Amino acid sequence: MAQKPGKVYLIGAGPGDPGLMTLKGLECLRQADVVVYDYLANPAFLEEAPAAEKVYVGKRKGLHHHPQEKINELLIEHARQGKVVARLKGGDPFVFGRGGEEALELVEAGIDFEVVPGVTSAVAAAAYAGIPMTHRDHTTTLGFITGHEDPAKKLSRLDWEKLSTSMGTLVFYMGMANLENICEQLVAHGRDPQTPVAVVRWATTPRQETLVGDLSNIVRKVRGEGFKPPALIFIGEVVGLRKSLRWFDNRPLFGKRVLVTRTAAQAGVFGSLLQAAGAEPIACPVIEIIPPKSYAELDAALQQLTEIDVLILTSVNAVEAFFQRLSTFGLDVRALFGTQVAVVGPKTAEALQQHGLRPDVMADDYRAEGVISKLKERGV
Amino acid sequence: MAQKPGKVYLIGAGPGDPGLMTLKGLECLRQADVVVYDYLANPAFLEEAPAAEKVYVGKRKGLHHHPQEKINELLIEHARQGKVVARLKGGDPFVFGRGGEEALELVEAGIDFEVVPGVTSAVAAAAYAGIPMTHRDHTTTLGFITGHEDPAKKLSRLDWEKLSTSMGTLVFYMGMANLENICEQLVAHGRDPQTPVAVVRWATTPRQETLVGDLSNIVRKVRGEGFKPPALIFIGEVVGLRKSLRWFDNRPLFGKRVLVTRTAAQAGVFGSLLQAAGAEPIACPVIEIIPPKSYAELDAALQQLTEIDVLILTSVNAVEAFFQRLSTFGLDVRALFGTQVAVVGPKTAEALQQHGLRPDVMADDYRAEGVISKLKERGV
Repeated sequence: MAQKPGKVYLIGAGPGDPGLMTLKGLECLRQADVVVYDYLANPAFLEEAPAAEKVYVGKRKGLHHHPQEKINELLIEHARQGKVVARLKGGDPFVFGRGGEEALELVEAGIDFEVVPGVTSAVAAAAYAGIPMTHRDHTTTLGFITGHEDPAKKLSRLDWEKLSTSMGTLVFYMGMANLENICEQLVAHGRDPQTPVAVVRWATTPRQETLVGDLSNIVRKVRGEGFKPPALIFIGEVVGLRKSLRWFDNRPLFGKRVLVTRTAAQAGVFGSLLQAAGAEPIACPVIEIIPPKSYAELDAALQQLTEIDVLILTSVNAVEAFFQRLSTFGLDVRALFGTQVAVVGPKTAEALQQHGLRPDVMADDYRAEGVISKLKERGV
Repeated sequence: MAQKPGKVYLIGAGPGDPGLMTLKGLECLRQADVVVYDYLANPAFLEEAPAAEKVYVGKRKGLHHHPQEKINELLIEHARQGKVVARLKGGDPFVFGRGGEEALELVEAGIDFEVVPGVTSAVAAAAYAGIPMTHRDHTTTLGFITGHEDPAKKLSRLDWEKLSTSMGTLVFYMGMANLENICEQLVAHGRDPQTPVAVVRWATTPRQETLVGDLSNIVRKVRGEGFKPPALIFIGEVVGLRKSLRWFDNRPLFGKRVLVTRTAAQAGVFGSLLQAAGAEPIACPVIEIIPPKSYAELDAALQQLTEIDVLILTSVNAVEAFFQRLSTFGLDVRALFGTQVAVVGPKTAEALQQHGLRPDVMADDYRAEGVISKLKERGV
């Protein structure tokens, strides 16, 4: 039997804030049978593909990376089984993301693939740190460089003589372990020691931290503050604009974690307001809506609904539970013929309307007492 | 009276494919009272803020850009009126997007703002053209440069001696008018004339075009093909990987525009399949569903529904029209008490269920004849 051919999506998930995933990336993720991920902007992404198999191939504490060959094999193997594979990567797959290496292996194996670009870490961190990477008055050149783990080997390949002054703005990815070397080389090769530098860690998340200095003092500052890698390093005059342009990490509640005692589903509006002020809302329900011990009474009523004059629904949850139970008897809303339906407030009315019913009675004051007096008015 | 303070979102909308907008960007756009846009990836974005005022500030044929001062004024003025302003930009606001300039003006005017980063054009075009901008075997340095409109002035400021060989991959934004100068300078300052070059226009859209050559021949090729600006210019060994990695513009139906004779609302699944094969589906309805000349017969029936034994609904449109008319009499689904409801097929059944009703009868063969025989079986 011919196998349906599989497909691999190499998806850039952005650097941290889950809102920076693209619409297309999310759509591909939702179609996935398998999600292969290493560094993850946010574990919330995995919830977007609830039925998919999840395979973690990232760094583990104290252990080496999953070897790239092993990752390539995994992608090919799953796709050969006819599966849709979402290969989730932080940032963008083609900017220091090794997406090119994975894509080449897929081509060689004859596997169909697509690349879904993402907001690369430097672009995102710059936006959230208030650093315009280009600016007419300062620079029209921008360089991205990886300051690899192995300074002796990789960094020595860089042509510092040219690099130091060819680009107005320089951004080093994965360069914190080599920060001292980077600063020394730049200054030794003609860059002004007063050139502003910013290091940004946990960019775009509620834990974002930024330290600003210049080429001559940033190493001392990083040590003094105990500022830990990983972080992106921004170098150039434009870093100075952050003084005016920071907007993300100086909001009134930035960095505060706030417990909201509601279910995740209900925390919506409140959560949004907190987020706008910079806080990280954590949904923490202290009540739980569960079914009653017995449905006997409700069931008895449902089976003789034509004898019921008024049905009062007191919450959205009640509406959902009522209709769910009704359907277990093979009944639908027609069973409410001749029954007046009352609700306490507009939210419940809205839930009711989604089931095709318009409430006959709604209280003015959104309280049980209000329903009763309204029913009295109607002579019920 | 104190005015509610307004807010400006500087939003990167990506380069062309509307799927490359971020989730956060879309959310901000949907909240906007005013949308200020110049270059637009896709006019579809404007439909996401249907009630918002739309202000176009982009280039007009034969005219100059809207002066930046005028744009700044517009943003400030609207925000001062307490409005939420979405400033939509192609790509990312902080990578050659002049977002920094606008943000500085907002700060000076005391206006609240946020920067929503986007997929910058080079990152997106690289992904869709199959060019990994970095690759372990080729380069770990990547430079973005603007090849401004005014070559004499801006480009001459570039330090070609250093630029030419400091970065493995170079991407020129807005450089097509200066392509010849760019290639000459790079070769004159030490870059191998055989270095691969790709020019990419209409990146990420169904019209994407890519031309590949090297520093010594790309100008001749561009002229020979009549390849028009604007386009991004990619220079470096990694461009050679496109041979293996192109996936977007070699799909079987790439570049084909396909008319689908359905309404936009119904073209969904068919449209998705076409898009996956690379085509651009254009919804082109050849029938239109309109209300009947008179509702007299339906209205008469609606007012005596209890005397109707069977209601046959023959399409999704019929379901919607029926319930809409029913509600004009202040009635809801309860009016169907005692009436059996029949549908022709599963789509209609689904529409019915969204109104809280489960069909009593559905044909096996999805045809009118099937409904009739089913009803006969039931003894209606």
